[in-house]
Amino acid sequence: DTCNKISKYLQAQNYECNIIGVPKTIDNDLAATDHCPGYGSAARYIAISTMEVYLDARVYDTPMVCVLEVMGRNAGWLTAATALAAYKGAGPDLIYLPEIVFDMDKFISDVKKVYEKNNGKVIITVSEGIKDKAGRYISEYGSDLAKEKDAFGHAQLGGTAQVLASKLKQVLGCKARAIEFSLLQRCASHCASKTDVEEAFNAGRMAVKYAVSGITDHMVAYERDNTPEYKCNYKIVNLSEVANAEKKIPREWINEEGTGLTQAFIDYALPLIQGESSPPMENGLPRFAKLKKVKAQI
Amino acid sequence: DTCNKISKYLQAQNYECNIIGVPKTIDNDLAATDHCPGYGSAARYIAISTMEVYLDARVYDTPMVCVLEVMGRNAGWLTAATALAAYKGAGPDLIYLPEIVFDMDKFISDVKKVYEKNNGKVIITVSEGIKDKAGRYISEYGSDLAKEKDAFGHAQLGGTAQVLASKLKQVLGCKARAIEFSLLQRCASHCASKTDVEEAFNAGRMAVKYAVSGITDHMVAYERDNTPEYKCNYKIVNLSEVANAEKKIPREWINEEGTGLTQAFIDYALPLIQGESSPPMENGLPRFAKLKKVKAQI
Repeated sequence: DTCNKISKYLQAQNYECNIIGVPKTIDNDLAATDHCPGYGSAARYIAISTMEVYLDARVYDTPMVCVLEVMGRNAGWLTAATALAAYKGAGPDLIYLPEIVFDMDKFISDVKKVYEKNNGKVIITVSEGIKDKAGRYISEYGSDLAKEKDAFGHAQLGGTAQVLASKLKQVLGCKARAIEFSLLQRCASHCASKTDVEEAFNAGRMAVKYAVSGITDHMVAYERDNTPEYKCNYKIVNLSEVANAEKKIPREWINEEGTGLTQAFIDYALPLIQGESSPPMENGLPRFAKLKKVKAQI
Repeated sequence: DTCNKISKYLQAQNYECNIIGVPKTIDNDLAATDHCPGYGSAARYIAISTMEVYLDARVYDTPMVCVLEVMGRNAGWLTAATALAAYKGAGPDLIYLPEIVFDMDKFISDVKKVYEKNNGKVIITVSEGIKDKAGRYISEYGSDLAKEKDAFGHAQLGGTAQVLASKLKQVLGCKARAIEFSLLQRCASHCASKTDVEEAFNAGRMAVKYAVSGITDHMVAYERDNTPEYKCNYKIVNLSEVANAEKKIPREWINEEGTGLTQAFIDYALPLIQGESSPPMENGLPRFAKLKKVKAQI
């Protein structure tokens, strides 16, 4: 979308410049590409962190309800990545995506069932953007509370997870903790997927190659081989195919109850998080590259 | 403390059992030991994540104020670990610890200075347990807001970071984001310090060895060699030396303004986060060990 706008603007200014987009977004919601650079790494961070929280919640014998909030206003790709943790036996019991209308009563009943079955241990993951059938964000439920007295001007009652954890505390009378992966999920480069990093590098190189060769108004896209073994190919697609189209999780990849993902999603996502890529370490901490501007070599 | 209680209870029950404590706590606040098993790994996770947030905040040219909340009710060891990120040039501008009385006016003035100097980029790290001079937790400031209407029963306005971010939004009129490391800081085993993991293993082995040899009511403790190169030795100390004593950061390791750490802290903490220790990976995700109960071999 940004590419499209930049390209049109430059044309209007009679400035000759070839524009090739790279579909970088951890949200993974762009059309015309199998997946997006960045998604595999964010998905890997989210899956690993969810597994670790799962383990932490099982250290004590007391009931423990955790609501983990993952980025995603309209598409649940990042939240769905927590299904990879469940696939490994250490993940959420319930997953709520923006693709499915959220119903508070059903939610409470879902959680109660797991709570009773699992001796009070429940891990729930939610997209920040879940909405009720009236189209209202669940995160807005909290602002009802703060509306009356707004001493800090912009204060609000936290996000989706906090609203849900508060509700569960009230209903179940137990400890319920809200955890937001927040910015960490988009910047945790120490946890990157090697597959993602390599594909992203190739996508960038191809974009420069196409632009220099005279092509414009296109985007590099990933295409997956239709073979048992994962293989990612690169192609270019017209920007108009991509602009303003938002790719959501297909309904058939979500289970019937709308609280989990099917094997089809696991098959889609698991190859994207393979391999470890960590920045070089120095004194136990990452050494970030400081880039100089140099002319691209093809 | 727990060890002490267990030991006294078993003695009262005439149950013969040798008790040797291991000072495991990421809080690092136990007396009679140089540092605690767990601290190095949590400190490493916190330092790395802070560096990543720093980098993320510099991606855009717009002002960005981030308040990162770290665990620690009375001792600031974990929050102080963010000074390691600053030492690497990608850390907080301001650090607020429970060891220093928190003053909201001074805080706002501190932040304003950095905000103007750094073109609106400010990274602040705070301990959850900072208090004002009346002894009131800053996190409680938020509940004033929610007091009026408490629809969810237990709802409250998030934690310390959220209170401060709301305040800064109001005062500076810019985007201010609150991030809590929450449970992640105590369970992120994918980010563990190798030094910490090895020392913890040794501490556990020594505890068993001493207990079997007939010693009781003691704790394994770490002692650092007084040499330029870091070396950790192990000793045992009497439980009574440890019980109910809380080790805080020495005042001279905190800068005069109370908003940062001195080189003495860096020298203390940096050796503890050296080396990488990640659980074995399988399909890009950690494989957690499932332990069977077996008799200890010395």
